[in-house]
Amino acid sequence: MVQSKIRSVGILSPGDMGSGVGRVLHATGLDVLAALEGRSQLTRDRAMEAGFRDAGGVDGLVSQADIVLSILVPSEAGAVAEQVAGAMERTGAKPVFVECNAIAPQTVRSIEQTIAAAGATFVDAGIIGGPPRAPGGNTRFYCSGPDTSAFEALNEHGLDVRVVGPEIGQASGLKMVYAASTKGTTALWTELLTAARALGLEGALLAEFGEGHSLARQQMNGIPSMPRRARRWVGEMEEIAATFSALGLTPNILTGAADMYRFVADTPLAEQTSRDPDPTLDEVLGTLAARLNGHHGDVPNREPLSF
Amino acid sequence: MVQSKIRSVGILSPGDMGSGVGRVLHATGLDVLAALEGRSQLTRDRAMEAGFRDAGGVDGLVSQADIVLSILVPSEAGAVAEQVAGAMERTGAKPVFVECNAIAPQTVRSIEQTIAAAGATFVDAGIIGGPPRAPGGNTRFYCSGPDTSAFEALNEHGLDVRVVGPEIGQASGLKMVYAASTKGTTALWTELLTAARALGLEGALLAEFGEGHSLARQQMNGIPSMPRRARRWVGEMEEIAATFSALGLTPNILTGAADMYRFVADTPLAEQTSRDPDPTLDEVLGTLAARLNGHHGDVPNREPLSF
Repeated sequence: MVQSKIRSVGILSPGDMGSGVGRVLHATGLDVLAALEGRSQLTRDRAMEAGFRDAGGVDGLVSQADIVLSILVPSEAGAVAEQVAGAMERTGAKPVFVECNAIAPQTVRSIEQTIAAAGATFVDAGIIGGPPRAPGGNTRFYCSGPDTSAFEALNEHGLDVRVVGPEIGQASGLKMVYAASTKGTTALWTELLTAARALGLEGALLAEFGEGHSLARQQMNGIPSMPRRARRWVGEMEEIAATFSALGLTPNILTGAADMYRFVADTPLAEQTSRDPDPTLDEVLGTLAARLNGHHGDVPNREPLSF
Repeated sequence: MVQSKIRSVGILSPGDMGSGVGRVLHATGLDVLAALEGRSQLTRDRAMEAGFRDAGGVDGLVSQADIVLSILVPSEAGAVAEQVAGAMERTGAKPVFVECNAIAPQTVRSIEQTIAAAGATFVDAGIIGGPPRAPGGNTRFYCSGPDTSAFEALNEHGLDVRVVGPEIGQASGLKMVYAASTKGTTALWTELLTAARALGLEGALLAEFGEGHSLARQQMNGIPSMPRRARRWVGEMEEIAATFSALGLTPNILTGAADMYRFVADTPLAEQTSRDPDPTLDEVLGTLAARLNGHHGDVPNREPLSF
């Protein structure tokens, strides 16, 4: 039986999202653990500042946590789950394992095998929204699986946890289709606006959209905060492509979105952090258009943008 | 010198868009010509009903028209321009040639070579909006090139003609980036909603979008009228992919959009015409999800759609 009274939560690892989640859980009275052995001073400082306690290595974290949340870049999810399974086997501790990463349902099911073989309860989860800043914030933690009670208990600790269904793969599937609708669309609009800029057609395109074209404006609004996240989104787009492909749908739209984010990640725009002010849309498009083939270098906007 | 007084317009060919344009030009007093030799009875009937006069073959059309509009599916644009250039050489007539098709700027420039070699004035054009139903309707005819005066003269005959700039490729470029923003986005949303349907996550996704999520609703609204156009849009998406690729941007998002439309075009939904009522979004997604891999056949919507 799963204990639904949670006292301690291990978070792998305290990045932007992980430390935000940890901060909320700590603020609401939980013992929040990170495995900081061998991590950078920046990561240690951020974790300490958010109220994490250092459990040393993964063995220490697994031994002391009632529940472990895996919050990583998509490409690390499998390897970290293997480490956790190894720690469970070495220590005999079996905390509930919650797979929160933006990965394809079939990837989640393969990770489930690893964790189930180690004897622990597995919860599929998908996080929609940015890192939570305070208890009761605007970030949704969707979950699915045969027993999600331990994760649901975090509803009492400032997280907005919502059950999608009883199957592993549903919560991550929801994350995939939702991210396709937001980040996939942003990739397409970044590309077409960059092309318009390079072709000197941005003013004509915006005029065609018209003053009241709220749809276009909403799509464009998402672009300035994208470059600093572009590197992370490459892997996420590839996971969505894999999700679609497994269903028999074309992966190409999403592998193309991954291409766009790789292109953006290769510019100085991607070096900014969430502490820097976002570039303007004009700066983003100018930077991207300047990287295009041949004579498009240093492409100024020929007409002022009206948004 | 181009004559800017237009009396007769040849249209290749009188499909949905071509016959709509012809109807408007005829209603405003122009002699509108089609080359109906060897065409189907359906095409002949539609052309006659719209007020076209049959010029016989392409030679007859070129000899009698002051201006020729090429309005076709993208894949036919090059071959028809070659026919027109041949007719110009045989007959000595040099009507202004307006390339109205949804094709990449570099494709337009290659067609320009063909027409310029035959000695005629060439205009690049891009049509945004559906077939015009009446003079002064909501369809925009963007044009570009060193001399667009003959085409601009059609402003006096019920068409909304707008000049984008002096270069061949600008009008078609505008059409490409605009179509990416509408048809590219529709392809992505059709895919992600089909995936959500197949995964049983449509209700959860719509709940996440929320009642007031007008952006999502607007994207979804474009889907029911898409299947009957899907076959035509495949080539258009490939032209946009070529446009982006020539700039040094990834073609994959748009080749993926072409994949999606090919997938839709292979269903009975694509057999409908503009005279049939559009299917509902629910019917479109149900039909597409039923065509996916394995056990997704005949996928019902698990929760009622609230839009």
